[in-house]
This record gives sequence, C-alpha cells and structure tokens, in this order.
Amino acid sequence: MNARTFATLFALLSVVTGPALAGDAENAVAVLQTQVGAWNRGDLAAFCEVYVDDTTFLSPSGITRGRQAVLDRYRQRYPDKAAMGTLALDPIETRAVSARDPGSALAVSVAARWTLSYPDKPAASGLTLLVLHLKGDRWQIVQDASF
Amino acid sequence: MNARTFATLFALLSVVTGPALAGDAENAVAVLQTQVGAWNRGDLAAFCEVYVDDTTFLSPSGITRGRQAVLDRYRQRYPDKAAMGTLALDPIETRAVSARDPGSALAVSVAARWTLSYPDKPAASGLTLLVLHLKGDRWQIVQDASF
Repeated sequence: MNARTFATLFALLSVVTGPALAGDAENAVAVLQTQVGAWNRGDLAAFCEVYVDDTTFLSPSGITRGRQAVLDRYRQRYPDKAAMGTLALDPIETRAVSARDPGSALAVSVAARWTLSYPDKPAASGLTLLVLHLKGDRWQIVQDASF
Repeated sequence: MNARTFATLFALLSVVTGPALAGDAENAVAVLQTQVGAWNRGDLAAFCEVYVDDTTFLSPSGITRGRQAVLDRYRQRYPDKAAMGTLALDPIETRAVSARDPGSALAVSVAARWTLSYPDKPAASGLTLLVLHLKGDRWQIVQDASF
C-alpha cells in the first residue's frame, strides 16, 4: 500500500470510533495488502492463506465454500502470472466493531474496489465486501463477496 | 420467514458459537425478514429503514452511499409494485462476533441468496453479503454487497 492509499484510507476511517479500533482496521487492511502482495508475486496459495478454513465466497459465478475450494477456483481462473496481472485494492470504507471492554476490534469489514492491470490488455475492475474476524492474533477473511 | 427456512438457517448456524450468539444472529436475520415483508408490501421507505444513515451499498452499477441514496436508487429501479415483484431472502451462512464479556453479538454478517418472483415473467436471483451492526438495541445494515 502506498502512502497516498494509506492517507485516503485514514480519511475514510471516520466510521471507526477511537484509536484502538482505527489501529485494528489498519491491521486488517494491512493483511489484505499483504494478500495483494502474494497475488502480485504469483503466489495464489499465500493469497488464499488469509481465508479461514470454512470461508464463504460469493461471486457472480456462485457460492464457493472453504479455503481449498477458493484456491482451486482462483487456480482455474488465473492459471499463470500473465492471467493474474497486477492486483490493486483500494479501500472505500472500513467498519470495525469492538468488544465492549476497551481494546481491540473483533470484526472488521472492508468495502473496496479491486483492479487487475495487464501490460497487453485493458484492466479489469470490480467491487468487493470482505468480512474479517480476529482469530487468535490473526485477521482472517470469513466472508467475501466480489464482483 | 417460513418454518423450513428457519430450520435451514439454524442448521447453517454452526459457525456461530453458543446460544447467545445464535440468538443474536437470529435477531439480525429476523430484521432482514421484516425488511423483506416491507418490500412485499411495496413499502420501499420501510425497506430502507434497516440501513444505517451512512450505509455503503455495493452493486454491479457502482457504489451508493447513505440510506437516502439507497432509497432513491431502489425507487428508480423499482418504480411500482409490479416491478418489485415478490422478494425472498434465503440465508446461506450467518457469522456473528461477540463482545469478550459473555453476551450479545455486536456484528452479524449474512451471506444470502435473494430472489424476486413475478407472476408474468421469469424470476431474478442473485447473492448478497450484508453486514449488520448493533446500534443501541437495533440491528442495522452498515454495508451491503448485492449482485
């Protein structure tokens, strides 16, 4: 994530109350940007590690249940690095909910625009809504709607 | 919501831990089914009351910000009861996160299939991911991705 994107993100974080929640939202978005890095290295397995085992993924082609099925779907649709292109994820809005005791958030949901850029053809772009839950000390995607 | 749908929902609630969370998920889904009832009465204003003021709505036509804009969009796309048809919402999976102190959930996200049925033309169907937060004692939709 570049500095401009971070600045934009924080401008958009007004719906998140207080510094602890903003920090959690930042951590969850950082996980998504790590995921983008894995995509751009061509590493779909690492890209999918961010999904929880029993994740639910909605797309125009239907419902995909479970991390392995999500990985298989991506491998079929993006068989090589040329097909994968270069992914960017630009957060539109991030929402966090906290435990009632002051402290870290337990759920962060991120509305974002995704863009895939290619050297030799037009870019593809769409929207996504990602629900992340804190599992132990890791943020993981439990539900994903992408189109 | 009919009895069969309720039974299906509870079978799907295995990702929700414990009776308190299951109850919250049930309450959040009940709010969505109340919303469906408003749709089927042709009452778009009541349908949109479930959205929080500054809601974010993602669809293939783009990003809509705020409850009033969501209502305007629906009024444009569904100008009368004939266009609205009959809505059904079938939950696929519901996720809840709780406060760390035992008690009620603060966020529920619902993956669901929507179907619009008409007497005189084929049904339309799609998927939705809805993020609801507990605002005071009301569950409200803060983010919606529908396609």
